[in-house]
Amino acid sequence: MSSHVHTIRVRYGETDQMAVAHHGAYVDWLEEARIEWLRAKGVSYRDLEKQGILMPVLDVNIFYKRSLRFDDVVEMTTSAEAAGPSRVSFLTTIRLKGDDQICAQAKVSVAAVTLEGKATRVPQHIAKLLNESMT
Amino acid sequence: MSSHVHTIRVRYGETDQMAVAHHGAYVDWLEEARIEWLRAKGVSYRDLEKQGILMPVLDVNIFYKRSLRFDDVVEMTTSAEAAGPSRVSFLTTIRLKGDDQICAQAKVSVAAVTLEGKATRVPQHIAKLLNESMT
Amino acid sequence: MSSHVHTIRVRYGETDQMAVAHHGAYVDWLEEARIEWLRAKGVSYRDLEKQGILMPVLDVNIFYKRSLRFDDVVEMTTSAEAAGPSRVSFLTTIRLKGDDQICAQAKVSVAAVTLEGKATRVPQHIAKLLNESMT
Amino acid sequence: MSSHVHTIRVRYGETDQMAVAHHGAYVDWLEEARIEWLRAKGVSYRDLEKQGILMPVLDVNIFYKRSLRFDDVVEMTTSAEAAGPSRVSFLTTIRLKGDDQICAQAKVSVAAVTLEGKATRVPQHIAKLLNESMT
Repeated sequence: MSSHVHTIRVRYGETDQMAVAHHGAYVDWLEEARIEWLRAKGVSYRDLEKQGILMPVLDVNIFYKRSLRFDDVVEMTTSAEAAGPSRVSFLTTIRLKGDDQICAQAKVSVAAVTLEGKATRVPQHIAKLLNESMT
Repeated sequence: MSSHVHTIRVRYGETDQMAVAHHGAYVDWLEEARIEWLRAKGVSYRDLEKQGILMPVLDVNIFYKRSLRFDDVVEMTTSAEAAGPSRVSFLTTIRLKGDDQICAQAKVSVAAVTLEGKATRVPQHIAKLLNESMT
Repeated sequence: MSSHVHTIRVRYGETDQMAVAHHGAYVDWLEEARIEWLRAKGVSYRDLEKQGILMPVLDVNIFYKRSLRFDDVVEMTTSAEAAGPSRVSFLTTIRLKGDDQICAQAKVSVAAVTLEGKATRVPQHIAKLLNESMT
Repeated sequence: MSSHVHTIRVRYGETDQMAVAHHGAYVDWLEEARIEWLRAKGVSYRDLEKQGILMPVLDVNIFYKRSLRFDDVVEMTTSAEAAGPSRVSFLTTIRLKGDDQICAQAKVSVAAVTLEGKATRVPQHIAKLLNESMT
């Protein structure tokens, strides 16, 4: 089972005047969740960039179901799947810690590109993780 | 024709270490574009909230096609359509000013809710704008 | 000894095109450090607001000495002192985890105000913490 | 007279649950104000970086006096002065458009550095602007 749970706490500056976490903050959390998914599998995204592979975002889809508030401890459960030879999609479910109800669901797809911005294959060691995650 | 063009300039702090506008920044731009769409039609979102109608975001879908960079002048062309009695969807196309190529496309749906968070009908004067926009 | 160490990791979206953490990100980290200083002393800032005390920021002073980068683990050592009957100043030193060199130093002062925005005394249980911290 | 006025409008996502502009947002506005100060004098900061000069921030000092709110139109009046051979300080006063009362005051100092991060002289054409601004 290849999903990974990453926990964050809602920052004060991430709230807006509706007194909930602003919808834009989720994008930053999701990015952190993807990087921690990789780390949990033994991959440092920082090193990946040093090795010449960037993974820019192709699309972001977020569905907001229940508000989150300042100081809430938020659990993000992320899995990943191949979405083509040079693409990976990350699926994240967001819940309040200790609560089963889904607060948000997201899919974010990233491309593997070289430093020059040319599409390239997802590195083998990452592709392998994606295959595992589907079995 | 009910679409509205809103222009922003990419802030330095909106870039990331890929030297392009971070994908999260678009969420803030799109919010500004929605508010300016309303303003162009004579609706102040600030006043709407004072009158007791909030419009929280239900979902965000963004497709990134070409990178934007620091200091780029960015044109966002936004239209809106009814998506149910208490929902509005905003469609935005993002381009570099003076260039026809699409850099990103987005759909963001918002709900009309009361201050207590209960779904309510989209106010008549806004619903009317949406009907106009479809003819 | 009343200082508290809070650790964060630099988010990708917090970098800018200089490939370092953008200077604005520190403001959010410092806010998190203040809230965690309070929590470590038994005070929930969330509850404080519910009890009708807000602590808006009066001034921010940050001196940047060494850059921080994506994925860096950053230690913020924070102490607090009374700065008048309705003011508290938080002093934070920022270092890379496991490294003695100072990367940034900051002082942020906050006011105690009522929900109506009127200055009020720093609550006793917090004032007490500040006195302790000076002995 | 070398001060420059740059106007922004407070974004929704820049508010926090106190229903005012979050203190961190000012840092991004001030950066925009510095860049527009330069542009008004004929200097493109984007080009400056392409020519190999970066201007990272050395220190930020902001004093918050009156809150700003969502949708407020905010005027930032910025001037600049030499602060050493490789340093410039920008002084900005923030007001609501059409109102004389000061909402915030800030000083931000930047260094001139090479792409390798070595301190270098402030380029002549910028240094010249600073001298002018003091006469």
